[in-house]
Amino acid sequence: MNGRTIEPRVLKGFRDFLPEEESSRSAMLRVIARAFETCGFAPLQTPAIEYLDILTGKYGDEGEKLLYRFKDHGDRDVALRYDLTVPLARVVAQHRDLPRPFKRYQIGTVWRAEKPAHGRFREFVQCDADIVGSASPLADAECVMAGVLALESLGVDFEVRIGHRGVLNALLLRHGVADPGLQVAVLRRVDKAEKVGWDEVGRLVADLVGPDTSRGLCGAIRSGGEEAAADLADLAPGAASHLRAVSDCLAHLGIAARVRVDFSIARGLDYYTGTVFETVLRDLPGVGSVMSGGRYDGLTRLFGDEDCPAVGLSIGVDRLFSALQELGRLPGTRSGPVAVVCPVGDEALAPSLRVLADLRAAGVASEAVPDPSWRLKKSLQYAARRAARFALIVGEAEVAARTVTVKDLDRGTQTTLACSDAVSVVRRSLAGAEDGRAV
Amino acid sequence: MNGRTIEPRVLKGFRDFLPEEESSRSAMLRVIARAFETCGFAPLQTPAIEYLDILTGKYGDEGEKLLYRFKDHGDRDVALRYDLTVPLARVVAQHRDLPRPFKRYQIGTVWRAEKPAHGRFREFVQCDADIVGSASPLADAECVMAGVLALESLGVDFEVRIGHRGVLNALLLRHGVADPGLQVAVLRRVDKAEKVGWDEVGRLVADLVGPDTSRGLCGAIRSGGEEAAADLADLAPGAASHLRAVSDCLAHLGIAARVRVDFSIARGLDYYTGTVFETVLRDLPGVGSVMSGGRYDGLTRLFGDEDCPAVGLSIGVDRLFSALQELGRLPGTRSGPVAVVCPVGDEALAPSLRVLADLRAAGVASEAVPDPSWRLKKSLQYAARRAARFALIVGEAEVAARTVTVKDLDRGTQTTLACSDAVSVVRRSLAGAEDGRAV
Repeated sequence: MNGRTIEPRVLKGFRDFLPEEESSRSAMLRVIARAFETCGFAPLQTPAIEYLDILTGKYGDEGEKLLYRFKDHGDRDVALRYDLTVPLARVVAQHRDLPRPFKRYQIGTVWRAEKPAHGRFREFVQCDADIVGSASPLADAECVMAGVLALESLGVDFEVRIGHRGVLNALLLRHGVADPGLQVAVLRRVDKAEKVGWDEVGRLVADLVGPDTSRGLCGAIRSGGEEAAADLADLAPGAASHLRAVSDCLAHLGIAARVRVDFSIARGLDYYTGTVFETVLRDLPGVGSVMSGGRYDGLTRLFGDEDCPAVGLSIGVDRLFSALQELGRLPGTRSGPVAVVCPVGDEALAPSLRVLADLRAAGVASEAVPDPSWRLKKSLQYAARRAARFALIVGEAEVAARTVTVKDLDRGTQTTLACSDAVSVVRRSLAGAEDGRAV
Repeated sequence: MNGRTIEPRVLKGFRDFLPEEESSRSAMLRVIARAFETCGFAPLQTPAIEYLDILTGKYGDEGEKLLYRFKDHGDRDVALRYDLTVPLARVVAQHRDLPRPFKRYQIGTVWRAEKPAHGRFREFVQCDADIVGSASPLADAECVMAGVLALESLGVDFEVRIGHRGVLNALLLRHGVADPGLQVAVLRRVDKAEKVGWDEVGRLVADLVGPDTSRGLCGAIRSGGEEAAADLADLAPGAASHLRAVSDCLAHLGIAARVRVDFSIARGLDYYTGTVFETVLRDLPGVGSVMSGGRYDGLTRLFGDEDCPAVGLSIGVDRLFSALQELGRLPGTRSGPVAVVCPVGDEALAPSLRVLADLRAAGVASEAVPDPSWRLKKSLQYAARRAARFALIVGEAEVAARTVTVKDLDRGTQTTLACSDAVSVVRRSLAGAEDGRAV
């Protein structure tokens, strides 16, 4: 133990999540996990470290540079996982007896040696749910619904925008944009519509394809919905009918009001092949998409298998957490105990700890003051510092009468009750809250 | 995407947790986290990657060899965390405004380049709760209680054995074992009592200190409890009264029946300085300790601060999970949906998805069959393969009558009901289970 001169610090792009923040973060992730499970997705975990060759050749040159790679003690080339999608592809290729469709979610840390910036970290949590092995439009709708249920459970207002790569491609071709490189360049500019507006996008696209093509193309992309439908049924019959079926399923699932068809959604140009969607918070559109995904085919090809239909969604954990913070909608904001038991005098310790045990048996997050010899004033200061809702005082009078004085620190009221009633009062105060922690 | 020839595989000592297992594992960890929070501990997360110098010099030569270390993209020496205790020490030294006592828990992955063996992995989850900054015996009792509550919540039967390093040291000195190296050698053998029995320990210790000393020392260590108390009050007054106070607190907290004083408990010889405890499952004593901990002083010294009292507990996640599996006590054993909705015929899709949405709104984990065009037989096979409890069938007759046929796959019964009643029936079947997943 020779660490005397070592400065305690974390690497740039890495973070400690201290209890106050982590209480909310973990509560948020529990809500999301529960929504995914309610929609029939089951959890998967994979190792943080993979053989290097499992990860290389999947992320393009730029992505590959960001891999944390090293030699392990057996001189094997290994790397930290860069996302949760390639591990999913490996799992599906490796465990061939997994049922299809395979519906899994994974919430896990990934590492990328990015240049740290505002909102960009080298270590962060990804939160993905995917259905591998179903081409049905219902699977697309189920992914959208899992994301919608998660966001609804977190109490935010939002809009899902849904499009289809096949529709976009058909529109590009129809307006004479056939070169794949040019298509990508055009779509990258279209993708900026949310941020810079359509006027600017029109100008940017015109720089690539001329003003007439730009006007026609952007107009067609913007039109979306009904008016383009008949047209699209000719242009891209498969894509149009798939997207229509997804929309119908979403309507039957009762979430049509959450969703808008928007042909400008492109997302992950090298990746998605069918339906694509993204989600903006109505109260904070500027933070960008907090839940997005789509249909992709290349997953199982990564390990030499035949193409297999897959569709998934991903929640942007850091972005969503910041937004919830800004909106004052963080779940489980109480990082300390709901109740602090304050014994006063030597005789009070035993009955105090009995009340404490009863509180915990009733599911109330609670603790005693750290030092039972403290005076009442110091104990109440401690309870306030812990942001507890209640201080339960057991002094000489309470010991004699077998009672507890319940001080409601939020309301400034207090009342003396039999022990079991005191526990009930505290327990009931949590009713309506999700659990014994969040009040 | 050139991974065609890459064999999908994981590194030795690393694991995929597929949905069936991971459903139970994550449910177990949620139960533990909830018990810790009920006892007033708050969650902390720290980075997986630390500066190398944060971790070196803390684990001894043997431990240090097991660090996964490498150069990052900025040519910095970094390493994956080896445990959660040194990161806790760093956090406490770095964030000086954290309140004291600081009560945190952390459930997180750690990495050690061990030789893989049965039950020993290179990547595994640690699960620690600690109180930093309180010397009170109540803090020791609170750590024991947090562990007890976690294990009770998991429905296992167990015994916590609690000892004190000060008592052991006093007994060693009293029997003339004064050399620190010899003390450690003796205690390593005493620590084997659970495994090899006291007769064998007596012989092993006799090899070191002679038969007379061994007999006297082992007898004193074995005696434990009351008979040694008066004696100990002279020998090690501080340790004896601290241990007594911890026992009293545990009794007041109502868990005396879970705990036995056992002076032979040594644990982590270089590490613990006061109270020590470990826990065996009464139905599976052979798996060893599943929950252990104690008091230690050196934590804050790691980063040059003055000693600060600390006490903690750690739950052996892999060991406990295996035990729960063997005992048939895994929580949340349902990794799939509780209910599968089966539309039959084109007209059934819309009402089926409406029922599905209602099920989810009622918190029931549920899904539709992947392909709404399937025949009923195939849909029911799917529901069975998903291990669902209920299949909800919406066929032509049900569409016409606005009903649903609820087939209980466990009991082989079925009944046709109005949609809202069907949802209630399924929902009520979950009552008594912890939540909508575990039935």
